[in-house]
Amino acid sequence: MSEIEPQPYCFESQRRVEFVETDMAGIMHFSNFYRFMEATEHAFFRSLGHGVHETVDGETVGWPRVQASCDFFKPVRFEDTLTIRLTIEEIRRRSVRYVYTFLLGESDDAAVVATGRMATACVRLDRETGTIESIGIPALLREKLETAKEGQ
Amino acid sequence: MSEIEPQPYCFESQRRVEFVETDMAGIMHFSNFYRFMEATEHAFFRSLGHGVHETVDGETVGWPRVQASCDFFKPVRFEDTLTIRLTIEEIRRRSVRYVYTFLLGESDDAAVVATGRMATACVRLDRETGTIESIGIPALLREKLETAKEGQ
Amino acid sequence: MSEIEPQPYCFESQRRVEFVETDMAGIMHFSNFYRFMEATEHAFFRSLGHGVHETVDGETVGWPRVQASCDFFKPVRFEDTLTIRLTIEEIRRRSVRYVYTFLLGESDDAAVVATGRMATACVRLDRETGTIESIGIPALLREKLETAKEGQ
Amino acid sequence: MSEIEPQPYCFESQRRVEFVETDMAGIMHFSNFYRFMEATEHAFFRSLGHGVHETVDGETVGWPRVQASCDFFKPVRFEDTLTIRLTIEEIRRRSVRYVYTFLLGESDDAAVVATGRMATACVRLDRETGTIESIGIPALLREKLETAKEGQ
Repeated sequence: MSEIEPQPYCFESQRRVEFVETDMAGIMHFSNFYRFMEATEHAFFRSLGHGVHETVDGETVGWPRVQASCDFFKPVRFEDTLTIRLTIEEIRRRSVRYVYTFLLGESDDAAVVATGRMATACVRLDRETGTIESIGIPALLREKLETAKEGQ
Repeated sequence: MSEIEPQPYCFESQRRVEFVETDMAGIMHFSNFYRFMEATEHAFFRSLGHGVHETVDGETVGWPRVQASCDFFKPVRFEDTLTIRLTIEEIRRRSVRYVYTFLLGESDDAAVVATGRMATACVRLDRETGTIESIGIPALLREKLETAKEGQ
Repeated sequence: MSEIEPQPYCFESQRRVEFVETDMAGIMHFSNFYRFMEATEHAFFRSLGHGVHETVDGETVGWPRVQASCDFFKPVRFEDTLTIRLTIEEIRRRSVRYVYTFLLGESDDAAVVATGRMATACVRLDRETGTIESIGIPALLREKLETAKEGQ
Repeated sequence: MSEIEPQPYCFESQRRVEFVETDMAGIMHFSNFYRFMEATEHAFFRSLGHGVHETVDGETVGWPRVQASCDFFKPVRFEDTLTIRLTIEEIRRRSVRYVYTFLLGESDDAAVVATGRMATACVRLDRETGTIESIGIPALLREKLETAKEGQ
């Protein structure tokens, strides 16, 4: 069980593992860790007053994933409540990189069960043509992301 | 184990149960039966030269589900190969009703493990506004659906 | 939009639609309604101090689905918050039947977007052999289910 | 679009993107790439005459993931047929590392849409207690894995 070091400020959400998320090995299927990372990022965006799929200046702006990885340290089971911590690693011109920590258990006894990383690109989605084009992060959103990162 | 009665002509597809589709009870999670029904309907549409989400006369035509039910008789397990049979029950002006049979095992020994029904509505999707509006089934597609039904 | 009639007491949970639960038609994929019904049933069991997959007198007792159906009235979208109401329809010797109502929107303006039904069987799971055998509902749990039903 | 370099021998499977695997951005949700990697690994094990969850000398042997990552280069859409190539990167005493390439399109024109890596650990699962314990890869299976790797 990993020691939990004191951490900088970060966005945190909680989630209980559902039955459908388990597999025949009796543990949560690993693919759900990626879904939990994404859902935490979306909750983080909501906390900034933004969406991960929103209309900005008449354009649909989205955030497809460019890279995602996860290390799995301990199995997680049905009805376990996970705490998921999101920290912004880097804000680039057209993308953002996050680091995630998955914790199981109450504060002092909590164990890190997995850690993940995700890189997402800011894009313009053309619904008509289905085209996806990389764009710079809209100014207002960038400002909020940077404030959140500084605040850590 | 149910007897398999001789059946009329129908569209048939096969599918092997994947690990991620199992749950901690060691069997396939029931929600996947609905996904298999839908995937079979899509394969059926492809066999007609159509899509379940296609552009007809400049409009996006889709087929959201209006009603779906399933009776589960026997558990299905990892790497079981299911045979899924689709039969058209009824073609209405703006919707189609299907009946599905899920079989496990080789021909003569096959057991019916589940049966399902699905009603789908033909709609126009407006990608700009996100509006979904019920429409009559496009003539060309209707003709093919009716031929398929007659052929049964 | 359906009128919401005054309802008897029922178990209620809430849930926000996630990005991964949407599909290319821009709405929540219908298979998730079944997953939400199940998750609500599990939350209901927790509220009774029980689990849907627990050890009773040294045996693993589970609740596989026997039948499940759903009628879909209105599309549900990313980040919509659904209220899911569970009512016990019937408690039999070896099974329970539930009725579900999915509501979208705040109290007085809430619309019924879907209704579902689910029948679940009480079974003994033999982990060694993988056998699943129908059993009578354990006495303690039956009592709590009946109290919940009466309370409605 | 990436050039496809000549590649060493590898295990290959194909898969058509399903409707339920798309999201509201109109593309396949990224979490499915991890599911496809796993399904390909399972098909590879079947090709060796083994299972990823099987009984060896009276014990249940499984292969939980220890690490998984994926880089996403191009979006994949409904009904696209992906070719997934698995290559064994390394066989250790208690684990195996795989590299995956996702291709879209016919042979000469195929584009690499994603590449992934996965490390899986060989474990003994105790169904009674739910314990998962790392073990050495069983001799017979190791031999087949090494032959497959050499054959590349």
